[in-house]
Amino acid sequence: MSTRPRVIYLPLGGAGEIGMNAYVYGYGPEDKERLILVDLGVTFPDMDGTPGVDLILPDMTWLMERRDRLEAIFITHAHEDHVGAVGHLWEKLGAPIYARAFTANIAKRKMEDAGQPEGAVKVVSAWPQQVDAGPFKVGFLPISHSIPESSALVIDSPDGRMIHTGDFKLDKTPIVGEAFDPDLWAEVAKSGVKALICDSTNVFSRHAGRSEVSVGPEIEELVAGAKGMVVATTFASNVARVKTLAEAGHRAGRSICLLGRAMRRMIEAAIETGVLTGFPKVIGPEDAAHIPRDHVMLLVTGSQGERRAASAQLARGKYNGIELKEGDTFLFSSKTIPGNEKGVIRIVNQFSEKGVDVIDESSGGHYHVSGHANRPDLEAMHDLVQPQMVIPMHGEHRHLREHVKLANAKGRAGVIAVNGMMIDLSGNAPTVAGYVETGRTYLDGSVQVGALDGVIRDRIRMALNGHVTVTVLLDEDDEPLGTPWCDLMGLPEMGRSHAPLVDVLEEDLSQFLGRAGEKTLSDDGQLEEGLRRIVRNSAMGEIGKKPEVTIVVSRLQ
Amino acid sequence: MSTRPRVIYLPLGGAGEIGMNAYVYGYGPEDKERLILVDLGVTFPDMDGTPGVDLILPDMTWLMERRDRLEAIFITHAHEDHVGAVGHLWEKLGAPIYARAFTANIAKRKMEDAGQPEGAVKVVSAWPQQVDAGPFKVGFLPISHSIPESSALVIDSPDGRMIHTGDFKLDKTPIVGEAFDPDLWAEVAKSGVKALICDSTNVFSRHAGRSEVSVGPEIEELVAGAKGMVVATTFASNVARVKTLAEAGHRAGRSICLLGRAMRRMIEAAIETGVLTGFPKVIGPEDAAHIPRDHVMLLVTGSQGERRAASAQLARGKYNGIELKEGDTFLFSSKTIPGNEKGVIRIVNQFSEKGVDVIDESSGGHYHVSGHANRPDLEAMHDLVQPQMVIPMHGEHRHLREHVKLANAKGRAGVIAVNGMMIDLSGNAPTVAGYVETGRTYLDGSVQVGALDGVIRDRIRMALNGHVTVTVLLDEDDEPLGTPWCDLMGLPEMGRSHAPLVDVLEEDLSQFLGRAGEKTLSDDGQLEEGLRRIVRNSAMGEIGKKPEVTIVVSRLQ
Repeated sequence: MSTRPRVIYLPLGGAGEIGMNAYVYGYGPEDKERLILVDLGVTFPDMDGTPGVDLILPDMTWLMERRDRLEAIFITHAHEDHVGAVGHLWEKLGAPIYARAFTANIAKRKMEDAGQPEGAVKVVSAWPQQVDAGPFKVGFLPISHSIPESSALVIDSPDGRMIHTGDFKLDKTPIVGEAFDPDLWAEVAKSGVKALICDSTNVFSRHAGRSEVSVGPEIEELVAGAKGMVVATTFASNVARVKTLAEAGHRAGRSICLLGRAMRRMIEAAIETGVLTGFPKVIGPEDAAHIPRDHVMLLVTGSQGERRAASAQLARGKYNGIELKEGDTFLFSSKTIPGNEKGVIRIVNQFSEKGVDVIDESSGGHYHVSGHANRPDLEAMHDLVQPQMVIPMHGEHRHLREHVKLANAKGRAGVIAVNGMMIDLSGNAPTVAGYVETGRTYLDGSVQVGALDGVIRDRIRMALNGHVTVTVLLDEDDEPLGTPWCDLMGLPEMGRSHAPLVDVLEEDLSQFLGRAGEKTLSDDGQLEEGLRRIVRNSAMGEIGKKPEVTIVVSRLQ
Repeated sequence: MSTRPRVIYLPLGGAGEIGMNAYVYGYGPEDKERLILVDLGVTFPDMDGTPGVDLILPDMTWLMERRDRLEAIFITHAHEDHVGAVGHLWEKLGAPIYARAFTANIAKRKMEDAGQPEGAVKVVSAWPQQVDAGPFKVGFLPISHSIPESSALVIDSPDGRMIHTGDFKLDKTPIVGEAFDPDLWAEVAKSGVKALICDSTNVFSRHAGRSEVSVGPEIEELVAGAKGMVVATTFASNVARVKTLAEAGHRAGRSICLLGRAMRRMIEAAIETGVLTGFPKVIGPEDAAHIPRDHVMLLVTGSQGERRAASAQLARGKYNGIELKEGDTFLFSSKTIPGNEKGVIRIVNQFSEKGVDVIDESSGGHYHVSGHANRPDLEAMHDLVQPQMVIPMHGEHRHLREHVKLANAKGRAGVIAVNGMMIDLSGNAPTVAGYVETGRTYLDGSVQVGALDGVIRDRIRMALNGHVTVTVLLDEDDEPLGTPWCDLMGLPEMGRSHAPLVDVLEEDLSQFLGRAGEKTLSDDGQLEEGLRRIVRNSAMGEIGKKPEVTIVVSRLQ
């Protein structure tokens, strides 16, 4: 083992996926590196793979086992996939959390919600302030994105400077928050940058990104021309967009009403921390319900069709006393994230049934821009920073791979580093230093369970196959007392025999018990195995499905 | 009740949704109409709403109860959402099934697979042949679509002519099958058309549709320039596309290999019925695995990311002895249907990990065209047929609503008729004649269950909440024998108390039984209710979740 110090980069989440960002940097001799963590985000469950799960967190086991070496946690911005896990995982990591004011405001609320000390979150100013974190000095370099105060991190190590972009776009007119300042970036990069660790999500988008300011005129025109009530949804954290929407409503003589907890919370946080000023006065839902509908504009949560959010509730019926109807307009100032299409389409159709006109991406207008750097913007960033190497982060494998190709095309070294790949950045090109076990932790109700614990797998199996409980009672001599019985859940009542499935199963189990010898009856394992096989085969014949089975053998002593 | 005969239209599937097409037409006095059915399709289940379900069929109860009035079933084309349910539902309807040769070939195979008489499927020629079906005469009028021999139906009633378009596009160069022939259509429409019942799926696409022939050059260029193995996926039923792909491979000096059952079956059917000629010679997978990879092109199933299809299997590893690797090319000559994004993206990333270059919609090229009429094409169809009224069918509510607006804009009457709305077409404008119960039937394993039977609801609940079996044994005097015990499935092992959840539940149940009076212990209903409440509340405290519960009370007699 070498004792020469090295710089390492180790993604524990966010590399090989979109969401759940968590990146470790280290400096020191092998296995003695002092560590920092950049971002601690979540990703969202779905019925396909994680039914009933509340949130998905990165598996932090590797870092927990090295918490004595962890100097600090830095949060680049307040999106859930960067800050969402702080409340759930901080206790197991223990290091101070550094963030700028707006991000810290959100992080503190998350700590509070989880019963963790808010004081662990430290507010830091933008570059040129730097935080000392063991061998590192870390500064928050402003960058534009779809949430206020996003920052890249300038990570100075004894072995050179690294820049971790965080999520970003190159926006010189972001409406809220700092404009992208290429001069400042050039200044920071001037002394030489070892590695640019760079957002990859939009590498397949071929046109240059558009500024937040570009959606204003069309939104304003749309709202000005609308007749009934106007409702708009966007990501609540896109404070600039919320402001654009609110101002469009205000100019059209409409009172603004915010619906949905996240929407109110984000605007509050933005006002509290001074990043948002001049937001039009808002009214409550009671007032909104009682003034003429053409004088109201609602700004609501639920742009992704989330069932419990305001937009879905409005689509289903009355919400907070407000009901949409024929002649109203509903605007999606957002894009649908892949996987959410069905939920969004459900809402659109529900509004269609009410006669509400829905305006979205397909309507020909232009009411949304992405918060991420597109391919030409990534190239511009590479050229501006002139790093020795490019390490693509935040993206699926296809994004990381394409981003490495992009870097290589201009002669820059790069590496596809997915979660769990430890990269040594010490030399002139990145090298793979090892592999670490990573994965996902599920927040399931109030409990954290490992993705591979089998808990969710069993739930999926019950969803696919249904469930049968078999109860057998045996006396002191291991003789059956009465016949076995079955309770079914999630299975059809009748099968091929046109007799109740439960009767067929009980009859087959009864015959099995009649045939079973003393050896089987006296051995719980054998007996359960036999009963399970009968249920599965018998159900297969009757209904074409092998259910999950719970066997309960009760023995009188 | 009027005895004056009337013409009715009643969608039982496909109106208010995409998929599962089934439309009833009737003529006669009220409640004595003689009926025909147009199409009998399926739609596909998903984990969100229908876990474990194999297929979703339209609920045909209304028509089954009137099967003595059903004259015939007509199938417009061989897509699953138009023909997929014939095998599963024919027995309950019993009428002859009419279709053109290619469609009939597919329908017969479905009947055979389901153990139904193939002879029920009758082959019909294209217009001007007409089938007598009670008061109706029905002819198959060729129309272009993304499958061979698609037909609109010319439905002549004593009250006038209707045209049911089926799914269609206006393609004068469809590669396989008949070109759209506006002169023939004008001829058919000349004598006057009472109602155009018209495909609505692409009403929001603003540009005119593109011909199937238009994708050829880019596909050919792509294949000609590829280095390693080339694999392309598309909908197997898009025989024209499969031909285009195969010819591009053939011209590039590659041997063609078809992978996936549907792909082989469709091409076989197309060749058998004479709609496909001149298809390049194909080789088997064993041969494909053993010739140089730049001499092979695979055409595979699974363009929607289906887990068991050839493309997903190739993405995961070896399939039929073939494994893709660095330098190979995988082409999606298809679009991703909303809801299938995650499955498709999973495949793309798996290929990325193998170093395979994936070409799809996002690659900037143009390798797919839709099979449906876009907005300008729909307008062209209205203008060509000049119907008295337009009844939009096949589409979600938003599509039907938009399509009615389109018809109204040119002064034509229209109505949003969703599944279960019976429309009287007798007058000069459509009127709502009544509402019929409709819904969905699930093919679950080998059993058909009603969507509202609660079977699937219970499975979803188990997937979300997990399952607990509680067993209690009582003696002849209703006294507990030993303590209750629990079996958990799909639940975390440990909760808030840091003790095994099963122990906490059993302890709480035991205390409950200790407290329970004779009245509770002697009453199964009360006892079960109490035990269930304890489990749910206790689990809520421990793990923040209320599981589904099966209670088994065994009483010794």
